[in-house]
Amino acid sequence: MQFYSKRNLNFLLNEVFNIEHLSKYPLFSDHNKETYDMVLSACEDIATNKLQPLLVEMDRNAPEFVDGRIKVHPAMKDLMKEFGEGGWISAPLSYEEGGQQMPYMIFNATMFIMGAANYSVAAYPFLSAGAANLIRSFATDTQKKYYLSKIYSGEWQGTMALSEPEAGSSLGDITTSATPTNEGHYLIKGQKVFISCGDYDGVENIVHMMLARIKGAPKGTKGISLFIVPRLREDGNGGLEFNDVITGGVFHKMGYKGAPIAHLITGENDDCRGYLVGDANKGLNCMFQLMNEARIAVGFNATSIASAAYYASLQYCRERTQGRRTGHYSDEPVLIIEHADVKRMLLFQRSIIEGSLGLLIECSRYADLTRVTSGAEQKKYHDLLGLLTPIAKSYPAEMGCLSTSAAIQCLGGYGFTEDFLPEQFYREARIHPIHEGTTAIHGMDLLGRKIAKDQGATLRILIAEITTTIQQASTHEKLEKIAKELGITLEKLVDVTMNLTMMGMQGEYEPFLADATLYLEAFGIVIIAWQWLKQGIVAVEKTDGSEDSFYQGKIYTMEYFYKYELPKTRALLTSLKSNSKVTIEMQDAHFE
Amino acid sequence: MQFYSKRNLNFLLNEVFNIEHLSKYPLFSDHNKETYDMVLSACEDIATNKLQPLLVEMDRNAPEFVDGRIKVHPAMKDLMKEFGEGGWISAPLSYEEGGQQMPYMIFNATMFIMGAANYSVAAYPFLSAGAANLIRSFATDTQKKYYLSKIYSGEWQGTMALSEPEAGSSLGDITTSATPTNEGHYLIKGQKVFISCGDYDGVENIVHMMLARIKGAPKGTKGISLFIVPRLREDGNGGLEFNDVITGGVFHKMGYKGAPIAHLITGENDDCRGYLVGDANKGLNCMFQLMNEARIAVGFNATSIASAAYYASLQYCRERTQGRRTGHYSDEPVLIIEHADVKRMLLFQRSIIEGSLGLLIECSRYADLTRVTSGAEQKKYHDLLGLLTPIAKSYPAEMGCLSTSAAIQCLGGYGFTEDFLPEQFYREARIHPIHEGTTAIHGMDLLGRKIAKDQGATLRILIAEITTTIQQASTHEKLEKIAKELGITLEKLVDVTMNLTMMGMQGEYEPFLADATLYLEAFGIVIIAWQWLKQGIVAVEKTDGSEDSFYQGKIYTMEYFYKYELPKTRALLTSLKSNSKVTIEMQDAHFE
Repeated sequence: MQFYSKRNLNFLLNEVFNIEHLSKYPLFSDHNKETYDMVLSACEDIATNKLQPLLVEMDRNAPEFVDGRIKVHPAMKDLMKEFGEGGWISAPLSYEEGGQQMPYMIFNATMFIMGAANYSVAAYPFLSAGAANLIRSFATDTQKKYYLSKIYSGEWQGTMALSEPEAGSSLGDITTSATPTNEGHYLIKGQKVFISCGDYDGVENIVHMMLARIKGAPKGTKGISLFIVPRLREDGNGGLEFNDVITGGVFHKMGYKGAPIAHLITGENDDCRGYLVGDANKGLNCMFQLMNEARIAVGFNATSIASAAYYASLQYCRERTQGRRTGHYSDEPVLIIEHADVKRMLLFQRSIIEGSLGLLIECSRYADLTRVTSGAEQKKYHDLLGLLTPIAKSYPAEMGCLSTSAAIQCLGGYGFTEDFLPEQFYREARIHPIHEGTTAIHGMDLLGRKIAKDQGATLRILIAEITTTIQQASTHEKLEKIAKELGITLEKLVDVTMNLTMMGMQGEYEPFLADATLYLEAFGIVIIAWQWLKQGIVAVEKTDGSEDSFYQGKIYTMEYFYKYELPKTRALLTSLKSNSKVTIEMQDAHFE
Repeated sequence: MQFYSKRNLNFLLNEVFNIEHLSKYPLFSDHNKETYDMVLSACEDIATNKLQPLLVEMDRNAPEFVDGRIKVHPAMKDLMKEFGEGGWISAPLSYEEGGQQMPYMIFNATMFIMGAANYSVAAYPFLSAGAANLIRSFATDTQKKYYLSKIYSGEWQGTMALSEPEAGSSLGDITTSATPTNEGHYLIKGQKVFISCGDYDGVENIVHMMLARIKGAPKGTKGISLFIVPRLREDGNGGLEFNDVITGGVFHKMGYKGAPIAHLITGENDDCRGYLVGDANKGLNCMFQLMNEARIAVGFNATSIASAAYYASLQYCRERTQGRRTGHYSDEPVLIIEHADVKRMLLFQRSIIEGSLGLLIECSRYADLTRVTSGAEQKKYHDLLGLLTPIAKSYPAEMGCLSTSAAIQCLGGYGFTEDFLPEQFYREARIHPIHEGTTAIHGMDLLGRKIAKDQGATLRILIAEITTTIQQASTHEKLEKIAKELGITLEKLVDVTMNLTMMGMQGEYEPFLADATLYLEAFGIVIIAWQWLKQGIVAVEKTDGSEDSFYQGKIYTMEYFYKYELPKTRALLTSLKSNSKVTIEMQDAHFE
């Protein structure tokens, strides 16, 4: 069962984003298309042969909480070892650090492939990679030496431990406390919830990158520190002993069941040691590195799930016969892929998936470029990545729910049954608008922080990038009209942006951000339209070549996006321009 | 746990639609507000005390296929008896037939209440009522006498058996055959799938209203006949014997697990007797009666599920503290219901639910009026009901998926867990855009049949109704602006309708119907906006009274709909006006 398109991934990496350009930088100079292809093929092998076969099994046999520990699918033990040994966790690191100096464009693509085969499994190594990256960036050499090799080898699992029962979206309200001791470590006490891979029986140890508040620290986000809190700690004799991180339970959830989400209780016996990473009270700044990586990862994995659902529905549409194109029973029935409305549902999915993947690879490219550039150039890529991160996370997350729903719809009644995969993907997709910051949080991040922070300077850089694409497209007769449409929509978006930020500058905090979620959605559609135009340019330029049907399909999908998706901005911008303040004015008592 | 609003139901039945007006007709003259309230209260008791407690249990313990039969939750046996004895299945019938001459406005409201408490359970009696209604309308007196009392008493279950493995949306392609015999009955042979309540161990017998094709019948929909096919038939000695209706299995599905969906195999031993109902080859015409009732029922139940999810999320939003309205950590955290974006998500749900419920009660009113009027007046209500049925089914069905999704989102991470109800409602809601005709089928029904069939005559009657509401609203200063917005949107919709039907008249079948799903969506938004304006008029007129916060809440929810939902027609109408024929032109080979 196909779960992603190798051809499309190649198209994006090589034809649209020309990954080999990176080879001019020393960090990536050993790589070229051949080495990338080898990595991607090896990844596809694992995904196909080891991950996908477990997809349904893991859904039907969710992790259980037994005798104080979480039991997951037994295959996870070998898989983590394989991820470690194969270098799948450490690939982006330098050679000196034991890595392969892999661009994120490729590393993230491997995460995409694995996520499309089995999202739950793909979550484990990603979390380890992110946690290890935090240690690399901010921990002491001793800490690095102790933890990194174990995490990269897959022997130990890394996690990010942020949320608490009373502090989810509002991280500044976490209450887990860290009390300094004379031995250098802190004593941690508090509860953490929704910790992905926060405990399970497939690895020797779990290393939590945990946010806590040092006694006496300032209120809010400026009083949060980052700690390494392992489940088992050094016992002083080269062994490990329990670090008072008790597993309180596992959350039973709607989908994505193969990965355990834990409830953790630290310091119940006042013996949980945490090791400060970075400066005291600067923990959230450090954590943002991991959070941003995780947000891009969510975007990739939301796209992965949508991709797997798309190919499942595409296959069905190519096998199922039903109805006529003409409506006359005297004609022979046709495959349902011949019906315009079915093609519309398939094109919807494809436009979401390939548009999102374009943006995500663009973001990965920015991440790679920040590694090899400096000064103003580096700042540009860094800022663009920051500005686009809320879109790269939220657009695929929100649209992934609708895309997997369309996959179900293609199958009719069968789509609602467990006999086919789309219903599972529909359940799995629903986590993405929630974790790593809800969609509302990302709307506020985009409008209230990323756009407002530098008076729109980064936004203007992004607009320049989009305008370049529009100009390029305008030279092609086939693209002129849609390039113009994008330009007009962009102008309207900028208009609305100015109105909103004006309110923000005038101190009208609530009206400024009340509809940030809608703003995020409109912004997202414009960004994906930009990505489609980029892809369209390449497709139009190549469409006379030998692979006509691929490029022709690309052009049709772009056309779909401009006919059916871009107009949605009209509705959103109309709402954003409305004078009504209904969501601010209505009070609790008015709800029934 | 609240699952629906009694206050709102009262508002719609009495204040908006003035149900007591029906009392002027002899059929309903014994009823008044008091008798209706008694019925609704009794229904709420059953829903609260018997149905809702089983909600989660039934989801976690889905029906199983054991020894050739489907085992459902053991409580169903007593519940069906209770539904029968309490008159919940037969309420709309005349006194002579053993009913209570209940208006559909009330009968459907009871279905709504029960569906909000436990949709799966509510499906059983509804299907029996619909099947019995078909027998009442089209069967012989002998058949009526034999089947009806058993079905109305809850001893036997009625079903509608249409779909086959190779014929779902395309009913004209069913192949189940009916061979005439000399004894008056037919021998039935074929397979049926997705038969709700098609077999289970809680009733003595199951009576299928089954479509089959008499040997030699014309191809397509004009060769389909309707049969009563009981699971057990008369044995000639006053007992029952097996009628060769074998249960092939139960479908395992994503939600709505309390109701079994069966696979049936008839005539495997050439001994399945079917009894013709109505004229040969006219079966589909008969079945449309039940299909239309079922479509309205789907609308109600989609709204039920959304309602239950809304109240679950509302309760959470009133208990959960998180974040500040100002963004400053120095301020005290607030209940999340104070955040504009959370209110937006609650208002979204409420606007869908109460707008849909308004339309559904309006449709029920039309159904009641067709029972007591005649001639041109009856035709008017009949035609309006027919025109609005695809909307009344599809709008709540499609929006119910998004509404339950918003309920999840209100709960953040907890919304994705089985510890709270919204995730179950999200899974249950997803069936509704599929069964009783997919959304695409309803789009084609609306545009290709209901609007086109009389050259827009019924549409013009509907436009006159909407225009009357707009004129009424325009006399209120508070409603003037939004009334005008509805008028403008309606005009644009009519414009697009003319363009599309023109294509249809010119024989361009595919372009005419290619975007019928979008047309249905746009039409649906306009209709719900109309319903909100109706409700708004009453609320504005009453807002100086004692119940201010209820009416004020109504006005805010209407305002929400006009700010956030009505503008969505701009996107849809733009797409509908586009010249692009991408979904027609793109071919199978272009999909990747």
